[in-house]
Amino acid sequence: MSILIKGGTVVTAETETRADVLIQSGLITAVGTGLDVPAGTEVIEAGGCYVMPGGIDPHTHMQLPFMGTVASEDFYTGTAAAMAGGTTTIIDFVIPSPKQSLMEAYHTWRGWAEKSASDYSFHVAVTWWDQTVHDDMGTLVRDHGVNSFKHFMAYKNAIMADDEILYNSFSRALELGAIPTVHAENGELVFQLQKKLVAEGITGPEGHPLSRPPEAEGEAANRAIRLAEVIGVPVYLVHVSAEQALQEIIRARSEGHRVFGEVLAGHLLIDDSVYRHPDWDYAAAHVMSPPFRAPHHQAALWKGLQAGHLQTTATDHCCFCTEQKRMGLDSFAKIPNGTGGVEDRMTVLWTHGVRTGRLTPSEFVAVTSANAARIFNIYPRKGAVQVGADADVVVWDPAASKTISAKTHHQKVDTNIFEGMTVTGLPVVTLSRGVVTWKDGDLRAVAGAGRYIDRPAFAPMFGAVQKAAELRRPTAVPR
Amino acid sequence: MSILIKGGTVVTAETETRADVLIQSGLITAVGTGLDVPAGTEVIEAGGCYVMPGGIDPHTHMQLPFMGTVASEDFYTGTAAAMAGGTTTIIDFVIPSPKQSLMEAYHTWRGWAEKSASDYSFHVAVTWWDQTVHDDMGTLVRDHGVNSFKHFMAYKNAIMADDEILYNSFSRALELGAIPTVHAENGELVFQLQKKLVAEGITGPEGHPLSRPPEAEGEAANRAIRLAEVIGVPVYLVHVSAEQALQEIIRARSEGHRVFGEVLAGHLLIDDSVYRHPDWDYAAAHVMSPPFRAPHHQAALWKGLQAGHLQTTATDHCCFCTEQKRMGLDSFAKIPNGTGGVEDRMTVLWTHGVRTGRLTPSEFVAVTSANAARIFNIYPRKGAVQVGADADVVVWDPAASKTISAKTHHQKVDTNIFEGMTVTGLPVVTLSRGVVTWKDGDLRAVAGAGRYIDRPAFAPMFGAVQKAAELRRPTAVPR
Amino acid sequence: MSILIKGGTVVTAETETRADVLIQSGLITAVGTGLDVPAGTEVIEAGGCYVMPGGIDPHTHMQLPFMGTVASEDFYTGTAAAMAGGTTTIIDFVIPSPKQSLMEAYHTWRGWAEKSASDYSFHVAVTWWDQTVHDDMGTLVRDHGVNSFKHFMAYKNAIMADDEILYNSFSRALELGAIPTVHAENGELVFQLQKKLVAEGITGPEGHPLSRPPEAEGEAANRAIRLAEVIGVPVYLVHVSAEQALQEIIRARSEGHRVFGEVLAGHLLIDDSVYRHPDWDYAAAHVMSPPFRAPHHQAALWKGLQAGHLQTTATDHCCFCTEQKRMGLDSFAKIPNGTGGVEDRMTVLWTHGVRTGRLTPSEFVAVTSANAARIFNIYPRKGAVQVGADADVVVWDPAASKTISAKTHHQKVDTNIFEGMTVTGLPVVTLSRGVVTWKDGDLRAVAGAGRYIDRPAFAPMFGAVQKAAELRRPTAVPR
Amino acid sequence: MSILIKGGTVVTAETETRADVLIQSGLITAVGTGLDVPAGTEVIEAGGCYVMPGGIDPHTHMQLPFMGTVASEDFYTGTAAAMAGGTTTIIDFVIPSPKQSLMEAYHTWRGWAEKSASDYSFHVAVTWWDQTVHDDMGTLVRDHGVNSFKHFMAYKNAIMADDEILYNSFSRALELGAIPTVHAENGELVFQLQKKLVAEGITGPEGHPLSRPPEAEGEAANRAIRLAEVIGVPVYLVHVSAEQALQEIIRARSEGHRVFGEVLAGHLLIDDSVYRHPDWDYAAAHVMSPPFRAPHHQAALWKGLQAGHLQTTATDHCCFCTEQKRMGLDSFAKIPNGTGGVEDRMTVLWTHGVRTGRLTPSEFVAVTSANAARIFNIYPRKGAVQVGADADVVVWDPAASKTISAKTHHQKVDTNIFEGMTVTGLPVVTLSRGVVTWKDGDLRAVAGAGRYIDRPAFAPMFGAVQKAAELRRPTAVPR
Repeated sequence: MSILIKGGTVVTAETETRADVLIQSGLITAVGTGLDVPAGTEVIEAGGCYVMPGGIDPHTHMQLPFMGTVASEDFYTGTAAAMAGGTTTIIDFVIPSPKQSLMEAYHTWRGWAEKSASDYSFHVAVTWWDQTVHDDMGTLVRDHGVNSFKHFMAYKNAIMADDEILYNSFSRALELGAIPTVHAENGELVFQLQKKLVAEGITGPEGHPLSRPPEAEGEAANRAIRLAEVIGVPVYLVHVSAEQALQEIIRARSEGHRVFGEVLAGHLLIDDSVYRHPDWDYAAAHVMSPPFRAPHHQAALWKGLQAGHLQTTATDHCCFCTEQKRMGLDSFAKIPNGTGGVEDRMTVLWTHGVRTGRLTPSEFVAVTSANAARIFNIYPRKGAVQVGADADVVVWDPAASKTISAKTHHQKVDTNIFEGMTVTGLPVVTLSRGVVTWKDGDLRAVAGAGRYIDRPAFAPMFGAVQKAAELRRPTAVPR
Repeated sequence: MSILIKGGTVVTAETETRADVLIQSGLITAVGTGLDVPAGTEVIEAGGCYVMPGGIDPHTHMQLPFMGTVASEDFYTGTAAAMAGGTTTIIDFVIPSPKQSLMEAYHTWRGWAEKSASDYSFHVAVTWWDQTVHDDMGTLVRDHGVNSFKHFMAYKNAIMADDEILYNSFSRALELGAIPTVHAENGELVFQLQKKLVAEGITGPEGHPLSRPPEAEGEAANRAIRLAEVIGVPVYLVHVSAEQALQEIIRARSEGHRVFGEVLAGHLLIDDSVYRHPDWDYAAAHVMSPPFRAPHHQAALWKGLQAGHLQTTATDHCCFCTEQKRMGLDSFAKIPNGTGGVEDRMTVLWTHGVRTGRLTPSEFVAVTSANAARIFNIYPRKGAVQVGADADVVVWDPAASKTISAKTHHQKVDTNIFEGMTVTGLPVVTLSRGVVTWKDGDLRAVAGAGRYIDRPAFAPMFGAVQKAAELRRPTAVPR
Repeated sequence: MSILIKGGTVVTAETETRADVLIQSGLITAVGTGLDVPAGTEVIEAGGCYVMPGGIDPHTHMQLPFMGTVASEDFYTGTAAAMAGGTTTIIDFVIPSPKQSLMEAYHTWRGWAEKSASDYSFHVAVTWWDQTVHDDMGTLVRDHGVNSFKHFMAYKNAIMADDEILYNSFSRALELGAIPTVHAENGELVFQLQKKLVAEGITGPEGHPLSRPPEAEGEAANRAIRLAEVIGVPVYLVHVSAEQALQEIIRARSEGHRVFGEVLAGHLLIDDSVYRHPDWDYAAAHVMSPPFRAPHHQAALWKGLQAGHLQTTATDHCCFCTEQKRMGLDSFAKIPNGTGGVEDRMTVLWTHGVRTGRLTPSEFVAVTSANAARIFNIYPRKGAVQVGADADVVVWDPAASKTISAKTHHQKVDTNIFEGMTVTGLPVVTLSRGVVTWKDGDLRAVAGAGRYIDRPAFAPMFGAVQKAAELRRPTAVPR
Repeated sequence: MSILIKGGTVVTAETETRADVLIQSGLITAVGTGLDVPAGTEVIEAGGCYVMPGGIDPHTHMQLPFMGTVASEDFYTGTAAAMAGGTTTIIDFVIPSPKQSLMEAYHTWRGWAEKSASDYSFHVAVTWWDQTVHDDMGTLVRDHGVNSFKHFMAYKNAIMADDEILYNSFSRALELGAIPTVHAENGELVFQLQKKLVAEGITGPEGHPLSRPPEAEGEAANRAIRLAEVIGVPVYLVHVSAEQALQEIIRARSEGHRVFGEVLAGHLLIDDSVYRHPDWDYAAAHVMSPPFRAPHHQAALWKGLQAGHLQTTATDHCCFCTEQKRMGLDSFAKIPNGTGGVEDRMTVLWTHGVRTGRLTPSEFVAVTSANAARIFNIYPRKGAVQVGADADVVVWDPAASKTISAKTHHQKVDTNIFEGMTVTGLPVVTLSRGVVTWKDGDLRAVAGAGRYIDRPAFAPMFGAVQKAAELRRPTAVPR
């Protein structure tokens, strides 16, 4: 069956053009005007709309077992909600426990994800180190389409990676042509501050941001970047929330290093006053790490996104309901960390990014899909509207408007950090590999329709990285 | 007639793919594998080669009347040499004398350029100000395909634009949806230092860089950027040669401003020791403004290019032969300013950029064509290998090698600033709108075959600029 | 007659010590414990107090003719008020009109200042250029104790110095061993924005900061600094109000240049919301240039002061009464620019600087007197409590408190920008060359008691500057 | 007995004055002209000379047991050599082994130091953590005149302090009013690179700098600074050698933090080419950590010193003879780390600092003594020429010249990193507490004549630090 998206303005990361898009067998087969359309083609009218690549959210945690509970959103509900918001691919995380086999964890997550409605892929976390981890990294890259590994610099006494693990894993990733990613917060400092604050009687959610100051993030960002620089491997920082971390990225990129930064929709728009809200549940609903920050950080992050210092946007979608959050009633350190947003990301970014003149539509596409696709080496299969690409396409109505609310969203969680925000610019149709999954408010996601996306190693930047490494290889002085 | 470029790796600013390229009637009509090729199609074998958009040199001065003489390279010889080097479009400059009508100057240059072998376009310089200049800017934008205006902050008592001119012209450009560009050097400072140095007996070419210190460039760069920031218009800095100017660009971009920077192949690779060479002719042959700089500037510029702080590469191709340079035998201030390179830019950048691992092939395309095309709003007609684009295509052999020399180059000048440099990575075939103009060392450029390229106003970034301006419009306080 | 200040803690820019201070014939003759005190010595009890050098305000404008009126505070009332606030020396400005002889202006101001109650000195402004200005600068330095020259980069069509004047005057200052100072705002930009705002109907005081954006200050700061850098002369920026200008100072100092920055008490504490106050008189009372800024600038300025990037604090004391301000009722551009504060500077800095932990008492002394004395080469005669120094001494009670108000202040102006601010830390006794001029709320200033302070040229830093210049003197290449 | 230093120019960190200096009973009792001099006073003629505070070297390791051997210089020979070079106080280090009692180590070092010829004091290293360390820190501060604690972030598997130790020790130091100091290099990274280089066959001294890249120093500097920032304690970075670390200091200071940096004479003047010298012994003689760096670092460090970003100069004097260095013949990682210089610091700094115009004489005094005295709270007893100060005085002849050589120096080591350097500006007389210890080439140092200097806690900056801490103390949100 074929579909023609007709009369819209096709927006890619490079350009905007009036063109129709023909879709056949899940792929884009033609982009242009006056296309030769087969009989029986279904027509989607896109007049007045933009036609864009479906969003890629490179940072989600569906049904994650974490801090003694499990995230409320599963792979089906989460990917369905994503498509209601124009996002057609997620990259989730396999997180082995220390000492757990990476392969075992990987297969567990693959099993969980089979019910996904949209396409998906996995970063794999390195939370400990020995020879089996080293070997499993190789297996994952060569045989299982993994080209990125995650490192938590926070969560001491749990999944924290110390400098030794970082060194070993980053070095291994370089050999394999995979990109290391980091959650940058100094876990020792967070641990000590949590103890100190609780000892001082600060046990409510207001203690959460105090225990995770921007300096802890900036420090870890710099440490990860400098280790990567010395090793000679690119590095990707997830959820950059603090101006300090952004500054580290700017410095490193300006020195010519291949450092990438991701920013969450929440960090761009929500400030840390939420943690001092008198309603404990409200405050706790916003507990995630890194925390929301003082307003000047939001201003800085927007500028980072405009300047290209930050390349991708994500959500760290990891939902916990009010009842779950109450596990931390006696101590903020026990509140399950996480907030949602996979459904909301595209529209809040359009509203506050494009409608304010911070971003052009093409820049919007770059930061919501194309850049993630390039960094994680699935471009132009994803992140592009061009012949041969997967037909993950969104028809975007820049004039459509709604007010975000947990009461009406499709996410499986009873709060929404954007509650009450009126947004303008919405997906009217979402297609996942050529199938309409969202249209005019009707969510048609199908459990299990999503496919696992293999991400090949050795993205083009590794060619450059290897050439540069050859040129600086040290030699012994003959004596 | 149709041409098939077969078996190569197509490189765009976004990606690399094995694909064939079909060309018909001067346009690219298909990119892919297993293409349906019409009978009689000429086949160009591109096995082992890259197939890339032809280069765009956004900064040339063919047959420029300057400092009492005229540049030796004319629009035919210059564009022919360009194509021998893989560059298929130039953007040259119309430079009215103070008090000269912009329209008159524009038509003069259009006349000179009719013999161009490749496509070409024009920036127009604003060297003075009154109502006619204001009006002519409008005419040029609306009726003549000009979307960029140039301002010389140097050359006091000649074509220097002071802050008043800059303010007026930048403001007017914003209204028109055109981008201002600047040659950033503090002309007063240069003027004073020239006087001082000559008075101190420093009259040889070594005085040239001393009279134009990096600080003079950094100062002017900042001034232009801050004026543009306050006015709210994007700005483009030509030939960024000094770390100081680069730093200003980085700062401004990091603050979210739409500031662009161009770097010349020469500034990336040649240092200021040339001016102290004992051979006056050798030293004088390198006199251009801004001058070549101390080595740490080159390192900084490369990093700026890698980081995306500098978006385009150019040459400021403006040739004067040895005899012409000797006009300044008694004072460096009288040596005609200019050097060549339109033929050499692509290969020296490949050699020192891609082969060293500083740039990927896609990044090479971005900085040699695609970015210039986007900024000056002719993308994807130029700067892209995609269906519908002009068939300005280069088949690039990464293994081919040669040694650059004035003896063998096609440029009409008796020196070459890259003399003796061995380069690896060369164009084996160049096509200009579907016509082979260079093949295997055979230059087939045809005088007058080039077309003038209209560049439309209001590139997509102006949409964002206008939205941002609305949000910050001041209002009076009622009292 | 001799005075003993007994039982206090002597604070200098270097250290704090419990010591008594003996004063004889206007000079400090002993500092220590167990001093040998002559019979008949008057004793001032300073138990619980700090004993500090009297403040130096390096930026005042008493009875300045400006914008069609004359500042309300004269040299007597102004210096008297200063001593009520602990400031015992002012450096005011001689401001010749364009084409007016510097010597003539100098003598005019000297005449006006004869009634000063405290010691005083003069910077001389260079507002135009010809050979007589060049010569008069020499005369002033050699024969009249002037070692600093002021340049206004703002006030187009009045006293604005363009780059040519700056270059000539800075070069001349270097020869003479005098330091150039600048009011850094791009006057062209201010002029254009004033025109534009008024044309748009923004005529009230809210237009004042809009017409003088921080970018205009940052731009001019950078321009002045870079001109000074190339010429090789130190430079001093008066009233740094914008983070942008501070950043330029930090950059330049970090590169090893001798660049100094002054900050006004007002810019540290007042933000630009005052200009949008519904009461026109209130808003107009705050009109000065550069204007008060958005709050993040204040935070930055404090950090600059803490870090030593800004060395001095001043007031730009230039008072205009409400009736005078109303000259600008129809256009903010006609409101006489200026605010007071010479009486308030020390106490607001103590309250917001020392009591908040931003500054130690020694750092307070450095930024209120010692640093100004060093830069303007009158240290340790002024700015120090040590044997041989002028006995300009303040006994400071850190526990004393009051609320600032125009109703109670000694300044001759009917408003106060610090109105209603409660301050803690006050001078209980002020001595000017050994004479008590303020004690326990009793102002005993005597008209004409102040002396003109000669400031010698070639401060020690000029020795270093000259050596550095020798090392980089260019030489011709023999050919 | 009394001594009069007559006819010289007294230079302090604040000013230069023609004055005589009277010394009685080891103290300075008068500074001025026309002094009342007791009969029998010995006169030292200082015409044409500067009279300055004796140098303070805040970083030495006399007779240190390290890497399997013991530094060749003992407390007598080392302090004697220091005085031959104009340095009259050293601050050495007590370095307990992990698990060794701090008190025990302290007393061991005190015993070794009894033979010192000059005054001395001790920083104490925190190399491990438990309650006894916590308690001993208190004892040392309260009862033993220690106000600074050292932390090695390098030397994994030996004395390296991890983040947990840093957090605990920094927090404890803040309570005690003591300043933490750090050797900033990422020990994990150094450890891994050493392994990697040796595995790759790079075993000679050229491997030393490769295993300790500037990034490792910058990373650790930032980490220490950010931990200190969050804890709210000042911090002092020893031997800043890399531009990266300097940049961290500049950033932190610009944000208002009390961060201090020390630079070694060697790092200012020697570059890393020494490690690739074909003579192994020559290369090994330069092995110290952090290593000498590429030349651009030296340029940056000088600028840091000029700008006041770096406050002190030291040597890390830690001598190993050629035979000792050969312990690392099979691996650079086993070469005992350390170089000398306590005798040379003042003259090389004068030669390359003052004679080049980088520093004024007052700035020289600031960075060679006064600043160290202030930071470590022994000012003005040390670091000042003023009444009441210890008579540690140097008569400095700016015209005297010599060539540095191991053959002629007084240091007990057979190499000198400044070998062959001609220096101009030398101490002609050195006095230690009023006793001439060096005169006209005659070294009169007496073993055991030096005294241990108690350094009191809570330097004035701690007052400011405590006030600032109060203002930002967090409070719980009532719910």
